[in-house]
Amino acid sequence: MTAEEFRRHGRAAVDWIADYWGRVESLPVRSQVQPGWVREQLPPAPPYVGEPFDAVLADLDTIVVPGLTHWQHPGFFAYFPTSTSGPAVLAELLASGLGVQGMLWQTSPACTELEQHVLDWLAAMLALPEKFTFAGTGGGVIQDTASSAILVALVAALHRISDGQVAREGIERGRYAVYTSTQTNSALEKGVRISGLGASSIRFIETRSDLSMDPDALRAVMKKDVAQGIVPVMVMATVGTTSTGAVDPVESIGRICRESEVWLHVDAAYAGVAAMCPEFRWIHQGVAAYADSYSTNPHKWMLTAFDCDACYVADRESLVGALSVLPEFLRNPATDSGAVVDYRDWQVPLGRRFRALKLWAVIRCYGVEGLRTHLRHSVALAQRFAAWVGADERFELMAPHPLSLVCFRLRGADEINRRLLEALNASGRVYLSHTVIHGAFTLRLAIGGTATRLEHVAAAWDQISRLAAVCG
Amino acid sequence: MTAEEFRRHGRAAVDWIADYWGRVESLPVRSQVQPGWVREQLPPAPPYVGEPFDAVLADLDTIVVPGLTHWQHPGFFAYFPTSTSGPAVLAELLASGLGVQGMLWQTSPACTELEQHVLDWLAAMLALPEKFTFAGTGGGVIQDTASSAILVALVAALHRISDGQVAREGIERGRYAVYTSTQTNSALEKGVRISGLGASSIRFIETRSDLSMDPDALRAVMKKDVAQGIVPVMVMATVGTTSTGAVDPVESIGRICRESEVWLHVDAAYAGVAAMCPEFRWIHQGVAAYADSYSTNPHKWMLTAFDCDACYVADRESLVGALSVLPEFLRNPATDSGAVVDYRDWQVPLGRRFRALKLWAVIRCYGVEGLRTHLRHSVALAQRFAAWVGADERFELMAPHPLSLVCFRLRGADEINRRLLEALNASGRVYLSHTVIHGAFTLRLAIGGTATRLEHVAAAWDQISRLAAVCG
Repeated sequence: MTAEEFRRHGRAAVDWIADYWGRVESLPVRSQVQPGWVREQLPPAPPYVGEPFDAVLADLDTIVVPGLTHWQHPGFFAYFPTSTSGPAVLAELLASGLGVQGMLWQTSPACTELEQHVLDWLAAMLALPEKFTFAGTGGGVIQDTASSAILVALVAALHRISDGQVAREGIERGRYAVYTSTQTNSALEKGVRISGLGASSIRFIETRSDLSMDPDALRAVMKKDVAQGIVPVMVMATVGTTSTGAVDPVESIGRICRESEVWLHVDAAYAGVAAMCPEFRWIHQGVAAYADSYSTNPHKWMLTAFDCDACYVADRESLVGALSVLPEFLRNPATDSGAVVDYRDWQVPLGRRFRALKLWAVIRCYGVEGLRTHLRHSVALAQRFAAWVGADERFELMAPHPLSLVCFRLRGADEINRRLLEALNASGRVYLSHTVIHGAFTLRLAIGGTATRLEHVAAAWDQISRLAAVCG
Repeated sequence: MTAEEFRRHGRAAVDWIADYWGRVESLPVRSQVQPGWVREQLPPAPPYVGEPFDAVLADLDTIVVPGLTHWQHPGFFAYFPTSTSGPAVLAELLASGLGVQGMLWQTSPACTELEQHVLDWLAAMLALPEKFTFAGTGGGVIQDTASSAILVALVAALHRISDGQVAREGIERGRYAVYTSTQTNSALEKGVRISGLGASSIRFIETRSDLSMDPDALRAVMKKDVAQGIVPVMVMATVGTTSTGAVDPVESIGRICRESEVWLHVDAAYAGVAAMCPEFRWIHQGVAAYADSYSTNPHKWMLTAFDCDACYVADRESLVGALSVLPEFLRNPATDSGAVVDYRDWQVPLGRRFRALKLWAVIRCYGVEGLRTHLRHSVALAQRFAAWVGADERFELMAPHPLSLVCFRLRGADEINRRLLEALNASGRVYLSHTVIHGAFTLRLAIGGTATRLEHVAAAWDQISRLAAVCG
């Protein structure tokens, strides 16, 4: 592809995206294809001779788009949003064109320093403590997802508590325990399995009526473990659970961790960014005093495009100690001097993209004010929606909804709610997901998409209300 | 950012990249900034009010570019290339604009099926066996890097050999051993540490004179472990080591693994893609018969832009068994039917980007023919360079160089070679890295960048030759 062709196809691709964002509302939000349909459209063998880029763009329309579930559709209310934006997409384009790889400071200083700087900015925006910044003893790093943040936090916690013995000699089966609530994301169990602790080392702590972790139950379970010679390694508190958005009492949990020198990781993947607004900053209560590590996903609700998890540690030495292996081919004077951060030691992979560029572009182009407006807008829409649900006696609200996730169901059997969910999603107008709360099948409506406005939430409620009459 | 603004800034960003690729040769390839310089240019606090995207683009030129080491510079010969290309960048742009998240088939069928399909294509292109495709018992998945491929292979191997006990109850300290050559990439040690096995479970096997693993030594070490009741879990063979490009004898290693039912992972991160050319297919000898898993990085030498590691397993059940945790909020009919692949169970993170799009675009726009041309061109340039080095009695070639990596040094003290490397890299015209071979400090010149032509390699040799006269 010549430079002129790149400019021409590049303009076409930019226009394709602008057109796509303009028309995505007219597409069915959940893909309607059957398993295997996409593969059936594709030739069994790769082309021997190259084709023009136009051919790819044409197949994007005819083969790929019908096979997509449109996460940028304003009627996408499932899981959590992965909201993208113009500045994020263009910064990703620039990062891709630059094609640098930031495994070491040396391999592209700006890739590392911009990341350090922007994560310090974000810490300030979220009122996170200085210990999480490079001015303190810790610092931030961009991970792909909260799952990876949890895994590296766990590995660092094991490193600290074992004084490096786990990294040298491995896990001792049955010796360690990890604590989280019954409402936690599956990412912790996955991380615990990958880290060699085994699923049986997790203690799922009971929750209070608001579905947040019960600190008394945590204390009791931990005490029992300690009495049996088991070493508590890490507690993971969640600020905004995937299931219902519940916020664990980080302060009370933190005090328990502090007594026993247990690592406290706070997973705020979805909700954390809300702390940018002073009125939602209560969600971080206890983080400054007690958390050893923390992560939130700007790619979810902060317009930054997947993937971008902002992960902070208070003690960077534990993390780097756990993950650093320095072979000869990576040695260089800057690393040897100790004056720089080499982010390869802060993550599972060796190589890394220039993801800081998009976080920088988003923060600069929206500003703190613009991002707050987006967050507040989502919360306001969710409160409107919850008010409509609450005023309709056919429905019940199943959990507190202080932010932008609303959990609700039709009073009555699970089967009715399953039918309602499937009817909604089959409509192509909206896409919701579900959870189970107190044993009951429950619908989740999560707001935060870049293009979602009041009219889309109102239309969703209208459709829910009408289909409820059919399914109920 | 309105649609019109996105189109306008998008065109500017596309043009910026085309201009950058046009002028990158005039920039110093290794960044010349000192630690801290980039951060000093940035304001201490984020903006309260949003700024126009033009301001970001302007700062890209004045703050970011000087802080970059230019991996797309035709004089970048360090590490291994991460070659990008027009089709890859534009496909990344499109993927970013679509903003879908492919954790489940259900969450965007095309994101999953295009990945399955393109990885089956790539398997055919590299003459990999059917067991690594979805027509067989296995399949391919895109990981971010080879490090992650190694980690998931290890976790799958532990799952298989322990019949799931490791996932349930964790590692038993001292029970397991992992084998690789002394020349291996540090990614294995990092993976072994993350997986809870501990660094002491690795056996570094001696190499033969060509720096490939000695199968007799492997057999002896493994036998000793077995005699002591230690269970061999995995052998990692490397096809193209990072240090010198050495190719381990996969067939002989594989026979040893087969006898003891040990998982064989083949890390072909750099060299694997060369098997696209029939004349280099010998590097995969033994892979079809013996490998349980395999990975190669199209982002290195196949024009696909970082990150894109193609990871294959022969037994997808072991991988999915090791990594699958299914909470209620991810349940859906497609998953329950067993008729689809949910890639979240094939990787560390839960969420995932639509990376298949760029691999698809690259294969289609270059075709098998175009990719072979690129690979052969790199190899031919490396052979020319090696011939120049070999003909100059001041230098010695330090390792076989059948592909595109040449390891060489000035005869004499390490210090002379250190000075030569630093002088070369300080010149701004070329960027090389180093390794240590048989105890001697050695320069590495790796070819494969998209823009590197004969004139650049000739200029590099000219400069090496001239600076050798000064440093030697």
